[in-house]
Amino acid sequence: MGARAHVSPLAPASPAELPALAGVQFATAEAGLRYQGRPDLMLALVEPGATIAGVFTRSRTRSAPIDWCRANLDQGTARAIVVNAGNANAFTGKAGARAVKAVAAAAARAVGCGVREVYVASTGVIGETLDPGPIAAALPGLVAEARADGWMQAARAIMTTDTFPKLATASARLGGRSVMVSGFAKGSGMIAPDMATMLAFVFTDAALPQAILQSLLARAVAPSFNAITVDGDTSTSDTVLLIATGAASNRTDGFTGADDRRLAGFARALDAVTLDLAKQVARDGEGAEKLIAITVTGAEDDGAARRIGLAIANSPLVKTAIAGEDANWGRIVMAVGKAGEAANRDRLAIRIGGISVAKRGAADPGYREATLKPHMQGREIDIEVDVGVGRGRAKLWTCDLTHRYIDINGSYRS
Amino acid sequence: MGARAHVSPLAPASPAELPALAGVQFATAEAGLRYQGRPDLMLALVEPGATIAGVFTRSRTRSAPIDWCRANLDQGTARAIVVNAGNANAFTGKAGARAVKAVAAAAARAVGCGVREVYVASTGVIGETLDPGPIAAALPGLVAEARADGWMQAARAIMTTDTFPKLATASARLGGRSVMVSGFAKGSGMIAPDMATMLAFVFTDAALPQAILQSLLARAVAPSFNAITVDGDTSTSDTVLLIATGAASNRTDGFTGADDRRLAGFARALDAVTLDLAKQVARDGEGAEKLIAITVTGAEDDGAARRIGLAIANSPLVKTAIAGEDANWGRIVMAVGKAGEAANRDRLAIRIGGISVAKRGAADPGYREATLKPHMQGREIDIEVDVGVGRGRAKLWTCDLTHRYIDINGSYRS
Repeated sequence: MGARAHVSPLAPASPAELPALAGVQFATAEAGLRYQGRPDLMLALVEPGATIAGVFTRSRTRSAPIDWCRANLDQGTARAIVVNAGNANAFTGKAGARAVKAVAAAAARAVGCGVREVYVASTGVIGETLDPGPIAAALPGLVAEARADGWMQAARAIMTTDTFPKLATASARLGGRSVMVSGFAKGSGMIAPDMATMLAFVFTDAALPQAILQSLLARAVAPSFNAITVDGDTSTSDTVLLIATGAASNRTDGFTGADDRRLAGFARALDAVTLDLAKQVARDGEGAEKLIAITVTGAEDDGAARRIGLAIANSPLVKTAIAGEDANWGRIVMAVGKAGEAANRDRLAIRIGGISVAKRGAADPGYREATLKPHMQGREIDIEVDVGVGRGRAKLWTCDLTHRYIDINGSYRS
Repeated sequence: MGARAHVSPLAPASPAELPALAGVQFATAEAGLRYQGRPDLMLALVEPGATIAGVFTRSRTRSAPIDWCRANLDQGTARAIVVNAGNANAFTGKAGARAVKAVAAAAARAVGCGVREVYVASTGVIGETLDPGPIAAALPGLVAEARADGWMQAARAIMTTDTFPKLATASARLGGRSVMVSGFAKGSGMIAPDMATMLAFVFTDAALPQAILQSLLARAVAPSFNAITVDGDTSTSDTVLLIATGAASNRTDGFTGADDRRLAGFARALDAVTLDLAKQVARDGEGAEKLIAITVTGAEDDGAARRIGLAIANSPLVKTAIAGEDANWGRIVMAVGKAGEAANRDRLAIRIGGISVAKRGAADPGYREATLKPHMQGREIDIEVDVGVGRGRAKLWTCDLTHRYIDINGSYRS
């Protein structure tokens, strides 16, 4: 891992610089769990009174940290998030659950909070016992060193096969004040709805009740983290946590619910941050050379559109064709056909890069492959498919399938 | 295409040699539809009185030949199968349907039979109009040249990205006589249930009513052609046809149905041929270096076992790990988790090459990675997963995901 200096050609020119957000601080350390010579442990330290919302993998083989976080969410407050990279602490049986508890207990002691106010996430290899010792030993130092400007270090410490740190920020007006939403994420393989080996930690200085925060997060995740796929594989460890420190807005706003109109601006900011982070994950898809946006319209409903879009996005034949800069739209037709959703073959229309390549169930007579060549050679490929049945629509993002994906995944553990 | 001399390392040492089967003859020609310097057109000529059964892709964007064959099946008899390689005649609108009709009409004239007794299959690129002219022009010559010993040529003429011809044969006792079941298949990419770009043509000299033939074929396809996957992609053109010429057995046996005990031997022979052909397709998976057998037990029911097996078989992370000879069983855990079927994480057990690597939801304490090395370095990888819930089971076959897959599919059309 350490030797690989490759950075995705789809990475943003420079990572977003995140200003301090009142109520949260970060620290990192080298715990040496797997990687050497790089931080692999991250603490987010939150001031008392913060609320927390979370969305987790739906995997049936979810990791021990997922079990822990889900159980704690009811309680609704948070003082710390502890994240390690290199070991997923998944499929580790009772030892795995004990390790999470030991980490949480050590963090609670160091922070001076309840053990259930500590959230834990782990990412890395599945099936290896996690030794909580080095993490527990590092925690007091992390609490002492935590800084409000530690965003970038934090984003780097949670990376595994990521080639660049992923950060995003937005602001909104809430209750007459300006509030911020800022976060970071990791993930580049095993990425698929629901979220795969994807961790994202988003913070706001707004004050929001847990129930509203949870609703807003669930809505924000659907068109962002749950609309990206790299390889169709779903991890045991996906975690999105959203913490509201409340330091910048009024606790007594008395919102009626997630639909309260006064929350619209905040929701937009949250949506923007989650979408930005999700697209950065797709941009860092293992071996990615091209970002692929897929818009499906004309489906029976939005769910059907989404499943058709995923069939396209996860098709190795579509993804390798795009890697080869080949506008092989017949494979898009194939993927629509295999999705199992209603589609009218004889009304199907496909546009690539805004150019009509197929309509009314056959090649567009006006289409010339040469016209598409510049688009296929670009970094961002745009596919639009109308399946001619109804009004359902969905937008998804993925990346192409290249030799580098195989290089990375044929020897990930070595 | 023509320049690629690579043959899958998983190919049988030599193709099966098929003896003549009374009532069917084969001929091939170079129609020049896409490929140059190789046969790309195959005629199977069947004597009057044969019955036919068929199973086809479930794609919603199925090809024009599929529409044609499905419509003809009710009528139940067959005199000819015409197959071309290089152009799938899929997503070709009304021109596609006209092309099929023109090919069938030309074959009917050349053979001297009804147009609905002609079955047509096409494989190759999707979305390009098929010119029936060269096929129609070649058909009278094919009828004149057809020979009973043309199996190998026929199997070669229908190949696209296949690296070896796929043939299989078996015999059985039926009504006191010996009957044969022989067939050939093509397919190496876009292979997934239900059958993907997979064509198979199976013949028997038994005499069987169409309804019984259809039942036997449907049963034979489930654990064979529908139990293999290369890339999870499903083609628009999958076709399995089974023709019973009746030349070797008694038409008046009066079987009561597909469950008639007197058919058990025949059914076993048919099952053996379809399984042999299906496994050859998996062995020729694009870029395959290793054949992977996946057995899932302990699932809620057989369907759940099958879906769990497919999640493992289609996981790029599992397939690249195996390509890298890495016994990364954590990825198998991940794939079980993402399948969405009931699985007891804490009772999950995994064996690779007969060696227990995980049990009771964690790594097997007795497992040493070095023990598995010889198995991982072999050509055939055996994965057994018990998900600890019920009695459902399924067996599937796939292959690893290698650089060659990307080489082939990044430039298939060029």
